[in-house]
Amino acid sequence: MTAPSPAPTDVYFDFLCPFAWRGLELADVLRRERGQAFRLRHFSLVQGNHPENPDRKAPAWWLHEQAGDAGTPAQQASLRAFLAAQAAARQGEEAAWAFTLALFRLRHERKAELDEAAVRLAAQEAGLDLARFEADLADEAGLREALAADLRDAAALGVFGTPTFVLPGGNAAYLRFSALVQEAEAAQALWDLYREVLASGAGIETIKRPR
Amino acid sequence: MTAPSPAPTDVYFDFLCPFAWRGLELADVLRRERGQAFRLRHFSLVQGNHPENPDRKAPAWWLHEQAGDAGTPAQQASLRAFLAAQAAARQGEEAAWAFTLALFRLRHERKAELDEAAVRLAAQEAGLDLARFEADLADEAGLREALAADLRDAAALGVFGTPTFVLPGGNAAYLRFSALVQEAEAAQALWDLYREVLASGAGIETIKRPR
Repeated sequence: MTAPSPAPTDVYFDFLCPFAWRGLELADVLRRERGQAFRLRHFSLVQGNHPENPDRKAPAWWLHEQAGDAGTPAQQASLRAFLAAQAAARQGEEAAWAFTLALFRLRHERKAELDEAAVRLAAQEAGLDLARFEADLADEAGLREALAADLRDAAALGVFGTPTFVLPGGNAAYLRFSALVQEAEAAQALWDLYREVLASGAGIETIKRPR
Repeated sequence: MTAPSPAPTDVYFDFLCPFAWRGLELADVLRRERGQAFRLRHFSLVQGNHPENPDRKAPAWWLHEQAGDAGTPAQQASLRAFLAAQAAARQGEEAAWAFTLALFRLRHERKAELDEAAVRLAAQEAGLDLARFEADLADEAGLREALAADLRDAAALGVFGTPTFVLPGGNAAYLRFSALVQEAEAAQALWDLYREVLASGAGIETIKRPR
């Protein structure tokens, strides 16, 4: 027998965002070294900040409905990365994490563009079955529908930035931090502090430094 | 001999803001029951959100330069309350706290408007020397200059919302919470948690719940 898996924390991210990258590295440390469960979810910053979406809980403009060659370079890059990550996830949860981290590191550590070459390189570095990855990438309608499910859940929750973590009980918050936390003890300390803020009886809604 | 006063934490607030009210109640508990030092500072939300001030660190439009009967009701109320609080502060620190809390409670607990009657009632409830208060109120140029000093310091720091606390070492953040915390132990727990977030080695910049 194995212990039941703990309920997962959803982590919403966009590959465009360096803070989401750090959030994913944090989650990965906790996942690998502390047995915390996280579920990878996609939230689009371009959609969230789109002028046609004044109410973030009821978007009129959805990223998954846009043509791949439409819009700004950031929009195209974000959509491309999301669809590729949905394709990678068809090879299982470990494949999804490996691809997600590989693509994030390519973008934010090695400063690559989120182009077709980066997507293929991330798939290769993540050890994906590349033939299957290409075949899954070709099912664009299916990938877009999977992305839509994430975008709809994010909108319902009112997600506005990444990374946003949603704890099993429903408590949720955007968490922006500047350090790359890859050591288990530091990761646990940050995670405990974040959860303590969300659990505070004072009803903390925001702590935000002026910039 | 008495112990040296600890370096104060600046707390920036606007009487318009219910979260600033809760922040001031928190500070007052810590001040009275735990010997924490706080300094009352004014930040104008109307100025901070003014369309002529796209760069919050270099405002073109300043509240202290506006006529008392100009602008929106919120602008007039905020300026009136600030100038009255500057007048109250001429009767000493305890008078400033008593007046500030009395006016905040009038506005956010008893739902009064921030009008001339509320200012006089707060002065009375705070136990001010009312004749001196009226005389100090009449020195409008001096009160406006004192307000300007606060607004300039807030702008230099990039304050964007209230309450914003600035710790003696310079660490600062907006702290928004929904509960009225008036018990010493709960106040200390919230304050310790807030300071722990600001001191975290992860460089936490923002924790913000979606709404």
